Amino acid sequence: MQDTHITLAHGNGGYYMRELIEHVFARHLKNPALDIHTDAVSLPWSAEELVITTDGFTVKPLEFPGGNIGSLAVHGTVNDLAVVGAMPRYLTLNAFIEEGLTVAQLERLIASLAKAAHDAGVVVVAGDTKVVQRGEGGGLYLATTGVGTRDPHCKLSMSNIQPNDTILISGSVGDHGTAVMLAREQFGLRGDLQSDSASVLPLTQALLPLSGLRFMRDPTRGGLATVVHEISQATGYTLKLEQSAIPIHAPVESVCEILGYDPLYLASEGRVVAVIAAEQAETALQAWRTLPQGQEAAIIGQIQTQQLVQVILQTALGGERLLEELEDDPLPRIC
Amino acid sequence: MQDTHITLAHGNGGYYMRELIEHVFARHLKNPALDIHTDAVSLPWSAEELVITTDGFTVKPLEFPGGNIGSLAVHGTVNDLAVVGAMPRYLTLNAFIEEGLTVAQLERLIASLAKAAHDAGVVVVAGDTKVVQRGEGGGLYLATTGVGTRDPHCKLSMSNIQPNDTILISGSVGDHGTAVMLAREQFGLRGDLQSDSASVLPLTQALLPLSGLRFMRDPTRGGLATVVHEISQATGYTLKLEQSAIPIHAPVESVCEILGYDPLYLASEGRVVAVIAAEQAETALQAWRTLPQGQEAAIIGQIQTQQLVQVILQTALGGERLLEELEDDPLPRIC
Repeated sequence: MQDTHITLAHGNGGYYMRELIEHVFARHLKNPALDIHTDAVSLPWSAEELVITTDGFTVKPLEFPGGNIGSLAVHGTVNDLAVVGAMPRYLTLNAFIEEGLTVAQLERLIASLAKAAHDAGVVVVAGDTKVVQRGEGGGLYLATTGVGTRDPHCKLSMSNIQPNDTILISGSVGDHGTAVMLAREQFGLRGDLQSDSASVLPLTQALLPLSGLRFMRDPTRGGLATVVHEISQATGYTLKLEQSAIPIHAPVESVCEILGYDPLYLASEGRVVAVIAAEQAETALQAWRTLPQGQEAAIIGQIQTQQLVQVILQTALGGERLLEELEDDPLPRIC
Repeated sequence: MQDTHITLAHGNGGYYMRELIEHVFARHLKNPALDIHTDAVSLPWSAEELVITTDGFTVKPLEFPGGNIGSLAVHGTVNDLAVVGAMPRYLTLNAFIEEGLTVAQLERLIASLAKAAHDAGVVVVAGDTKVVQRGEGGGLYLATTGVGTRDPHCKLSMSNIQPNDTILISGSVGDHGTAVMLAREQFGLRGDLQSDSASVLPLTQALLPLSGLRFMRDPTRGGLATVVHEISQATGYTLKLEQSAIPIHAPVESVCEILGYDPLYLASEGRVVAVIAAEQAETALQAWRTLPQGQEAAIIGQIQTQQLVQVILQTALGGERLLEELEDDPLPRIC
C-alpha cells in the first residue's frame, strides 16, 4: 500500500481500510479458511471436543528482544489452549491500531504473528481492525480468540489436585517480564536477556499421556507466584515451593536485584507449571528435559496436606516464608 | 468492590484484578459455561456447522442515545453471525480498560452487555481484561468473538448473486452514526435521535426459509454505500439504487444536511441489507414488515445485467449519479 502511516481513514470501512486489510493483514495471514469478504467463517470440526479462549495484548514496547506483540499474541492464545490439553486449531484477530503507527512496523508485527501462527499450527480465520485517534491506542493492541480441539476424556482441572502432588515448571521464570522491562526503560542494563515467548504445545503434549497429570498453566501475568496462589485458593491446600529449585536465569536475577523486583511475580510467556501425581513426577520431568524448550525443567514444590490457603517458600537457608499474593503492579503492559 | 476507579493494579494478574473480574465481569456475565478459573472453555456442539466471527469496538462516547459500547459489542457480533444464516451461541469478550475509568461506568457498560447477550440468546464463555495507562485507551475498547451454529445447507454468499436480483433493507439508514455523532459533539441538535443498535436475528431468521435468498449483510462501518460497493466489486455487476426508496428518518436527514454528511455512508447497527431473487422480493418484504424491527423495510434497488463495477443512484427527480466508494472518514470511532 502507498501510505506509510496509519490514518483514521484506515478504519472507516471504505477504500483505505480495504487496502489495509488486503495488503497488510490478508497477505500475511492468507489460508484456505480465511475469507475477508464474509462476516463469519465456519469451522470444520471433527468428533472431538471444541475449546475456546481469548486474550488481549498491550505490551510496550511493541517489539522487544525475543519477540513482539504479534508473536506474543499467538503464543499467549495457543498456550492457553495447550495447557488445558487442547490442540490449537484456529485464531481470530482483532487489531486496535493507533493513528500514526507506521505501516512498516505494522507489517513487521503482522508478519511475525503470521509466522508464529504457522509454526504453532494454527490458522487465522477471522479478523477485524479499528483505528483509534493518535494518542489513544498505545500503538497497537491485539485481541485474539483461539479455538482448539481436545480429546473429550482429557479432564485437566485444579479440582483434580490432591495432597502430596508434585509441582513442576518447564523452565526459568521471569525472562519475558524482565526482557520487556529492559526494552522499555533506559536502564543501560540490556545484556543478552530475551523473552521466553514461545508456543508451549510440545511441552503440554509431552505430559498428556501421563494418567497422573492433574493440571497445567502458563505463568503469564502475575508470574509463578500468581499460579501457585490460584491453586491454593481453588483447592484449599497449602502449597510449598523450594526456592532454590526454581530455575531463574542469572541476568534475570541480577536485574531484579538491582531494580527491586521479585522474578516469581514476573511473566513468562513460554513456560508451563504442571501439577502431577508424585509417582509420575520423575517421568514428567524426564519427558520435558528431552525437549529443547524443557532443558531447564525442574520439580519445584508440593501440595501439602494442610488445608489452609497459603504458599510457603522454603528458602535456600532452610527457613520458610509466606509468598504473598501480588497486589501492586510490578510491571504494567508487559503482555 | 471497594475501588471507584480503575488503576493499573486492576490489570496485573493479582488480587485487584481478581476482584475486578469477580465483582464486575463474572457477576454480570455468569452462566453455566463461563469458568473464570480456566484458560479455555469447551463448546458443547451438535451436528450443525460452526461459524465464527470477531469484532473490535471503540465507540466514543461510550454511552449514547439507544445504546452503549457494551450492548453495541453484543449486537455487532451477533449480527455478523445472523447475516450469514447462523444462530449465535457463544461470545468471548476482551476488555481494554483505561486507567481512571470509573468502576461505576464500567459496571453499567458490562451490565448492559450482559443484558444484550441474554436478550440475543448468547452466553459469554471466555474473557480477558487488560488495563492500559491513563490517556492510552479511550476509556474502554472491547473485542468480541462470536461462535454460532448453522444448517450446513445454508450457503449465503455474494457469489450467489445474479442479475435482476432485488436489494432490500430492513429499516432506515444512518441512525446509529448520527446518534453517536450528536452524542459526541456539542452541536445542540439532540432531538430524539436514537441509535438503531439491536440484534437483527429475528430479521435474518425470517428470510432464511426463502430459497431465493442470496446474501445478507448488516450495513455498519461505511454504511449502506459500502455494502453495495462490496457487492458490485465481488460480483462484477452494476447495482442500481432508488434514492427515494431508501428509508431515512427525518431527523437523520436534517442533521446530515446541516452538517454535510451523507446518511448512505453512516453506520446502522440494527439493519440488514438482503439480496434475493426478484420473484421472492415481495414475500421477503412482507416477512420483515410483520416484525417490530422491520416496519420500515423497503425494496431499494436491483442488480443490473451490466458487468461494470459501479453503483448508480437514481435520484428522486429521475436523474442518475454514481455513488462513490467511501474514502475519507466521515466519523471515526462510531462502532
